Amino acid sequence: MIKLPQLVKTQFLSVQDVATLINRMGLETVFKGMASYIREDYLRWQDFEKCARVANHSTDGVIELMPISDAKTYAFKYVNGHPKNTAIGLPCVMAFGVLADVDTGIPEFMSELTLSTALRTAAMSAVAAQVLARPDSKCMALIGNGAQSEFQALAFHYLLGIEEIRLYDTDPQATAKLLANLQSSGLRLTVCDSVAEAVRGANIVTTVTADKTNAAILTLNHIEPGMHINGVGGDCPGKTELHPDVLRASSVFVEYEPQTRIEGDLQHLPADFAVTELWQVLAGQTPGRSHAKEITLFDSVGFALQDYSALRFMRDAAIELGLGQVVSLIPELVNPKDLFVLLQPDSHATPAPLMNKTSQTAARRTLIQEVVLTA
Amino acid sequence: MIKLPQLVKTQFLSVQDVATLINRMGLETVFKGMASYIREDYLRWQDFEKCARVANHSTDGVIELMPISDAKTYAFKYVNGHPKNTAIGLPCVMAFGVLADVDTGIPEFMSELTLSTALRTAAMSAVAAQVLARPDSKCMALIGNGAQSEFQALAFHYLLGIEEIRLYDTDPQATAKLLANLQSSGLRLTVCDSVAEAVRGANIVTTVTADKTNAAILTLNHIEPGMHINGVGGDCPGKTELHPDVLRASSVFVEYEPQTRIEGDLQHLPADFAVTELWQVLAGQTPGRSHAKEITLFDSVGFALQDYSALRFMRDAAIELGLGQVVSLIPELVNPKDLFVLLQPDSHATPAPLMNKTSQTAARRTLIQEVVLTA
Repeated sequence: MIKLPQLVKTQFLSVQDVATLINRMGLETVFKGMASYIREDYLRWQDFEKCARVANHSTDGVIELMPISDAKTYAFKYVNGHPKNTAIGLPCVMAFGVLADVDTGIPEFMSELTLSTALRTAAMSAVAAQVLARPDSKCMALIGNGAQSEFQALAFHYLLGIEEIRLYDTDPQATAKLLANLQSSGLRLTVCDSVAEAVRGANIVTTVTADKTNAAILTLNHIEPGMHINGVGGDCPGKTELHPDVLRASSVFVEYEPQTRIEGDLQHLPADFAVTELWQVLAGQTPGRSHAKEITLFDSVGFALQDYSALRFMRDAAIELGLGQVVSLIPELVNPKDLFVLLQPDSHATPAPLMNKTSQTAARRTLIQEVVLTA
Repeated sequence: MIKLPQLVKTQFLSVQDVATLINRMGLETVFKGMASYIREDYLRWQDFEKCARVANHSTDGVIELMPISDAKTYAFKYVNGHPKNTAIGLPCVMAFGVLADVDTGIPEFMSELTLSTALRTAAMSAVAAQVLARPDSKCMALIGNGAQSEFQALAFHYLLGIEEIRLYDTDPQATAKLLANLQSSGLRLTVCDSVAEAVRGANIVTTVTADKTNAAILTLNHIEPGMHINGVGGDCPGKTELHPDVLRASSVFVEYEPQTRIEGDLQHLPADFAVTELWQVLAGQTPGRSHAKEITLFDSVGFALQDYSALRFMRDAAIELGLGQVVSLIPELVNPKDLFVLLQPDSHATPAPLMNKTSQTAARRTLIQEVVLTA
């Protein structure tokens, strides 16, 4: 008897699907779910085969691939960083990603990750701040009010109880957009005229700017004892936000040290400058903040493990809500050694290119019937 | 006036689309087109930012990402290698890939690459054999009659004028399948009982087996003066096909030396064993075959540049034939700094998840009208 064909389905989640998913679940639930998936995965840090992402640089930007795997699941993200894109009406950061089965190599799930990257980056920032910021933090400065900023503001609102955000951007229209988007969020929003004004008195300082330059948006004179700095926008060689003295004055925490040494604000410091990988704090192996006056700094560049968590969360949530559709990315073969059969004009070996679940099931039933009949 | 949104379209080519494309163009035209794209790209070898592929290994397989870029276009392929997959009804090798715009990072084109990888691997083998095999070659031994074998046979038929193929596989059903698939190809097909019988008197020997073991399918006693060996199946650490003495007796040509040293049959030879990169031969900088009795060997592992060429060919051919569809992989934003707007329930900032070209154009027209009206 001939073996029945395996199911080779790739579930696809579009931008619209992810937007629908977030609207149906609610942003607070999504942030909490994603943060919990991230924590869960960081607690089994040793299970993962990790590497620094693979970057192809050009004059104005970078395109990166971020693979990671454990014994069961492989994930990768495609992501670009092109700060000048906004001038031509495009997002600076665009992304998509895939989850695959390690045992067979089947790419089982593909999702947009532009929206999801904004979510996971903010969730990761909040997960770090939960163990690094002072527990009584209520006020955050938000330097850079671009595409990622609302997500940072809301993640800190929902996950840390931040009540006031002090806003600054060199582009007042960006700040106006943030104000409009978050007007009914419950956050108290204060527009400031300078970095210094925004930062003064804040418990947490989030920098999330986009220029591909070595900037020093935050300098030592801005920093107050007890602050937590969430440095998000410095994430590429030649793209930094913090004066090196800010790092020297702080206890510095990173996602994955080999990658942050290349890409983070850490790139300006010597190779022996001490940092702590965040998973050690989450696992209770190393203390996070040790006293109220300590300055803590999360030099975040975005690591593949967060995308693994984000993809896992999106896949599970999409299944729960019945979102997404099947795409024909991989051929389904009756005989796996017979790829050539796909070129027969009457081949039934692969389903129609894009179909809803009902017709997919029907097509599979036809295929299986044929196999059984000819067996 | 508000800037009109940029077009962020990803054209998607499914398995069925690629099968249709090949059937409409004809396999001979596709092979010739793909070979010509590969040659064209190899002739500008220095234009590319190259790296060895990034592999995540597991017990039974590997998942790899293969990026490459020039100043204009970035390409990557996702591909697995799981030799045991056939036992559970799945292909050993499954793949898909993307072309992106280097200036903006937009992933403009996504295609299945399982079928396309079989095509491009065979086209690459033929491109190499055109400069390495004896010009009077008429007979090829084909060791391994699995999923890739028909493609190798036909590429050599169409591009080199091979008239007879001598077949051997440890699995007689694989050979029977090949015979059935190529019965009306015009090739003379001879089934052999052993590697030695298949190889005897052949001008070209193609090995395309799949086991993840260090095999020695071809040994020195099989080799005759003047042969060209096209070693395709040894492409991973611990997955080889040729006895090291076969390499020692040959002039060895490779795609990209740093990758082949890790993955090719070359992995069993010392780091200073001399090899020639194929682009040098294609560019006329180094001779290929220098005399009729020389044994030439193409230690092919599959390099990202061939996938760049294959994706380019598939994109151009799909445009010509009007195949494929638009997928919503990347959000389209009226204000590129406003990603958050996608979470407004009445957002028109992104098109419906999957639509044909007509409704895509209609949706865009609506969007653009709205922008103009509110400007």
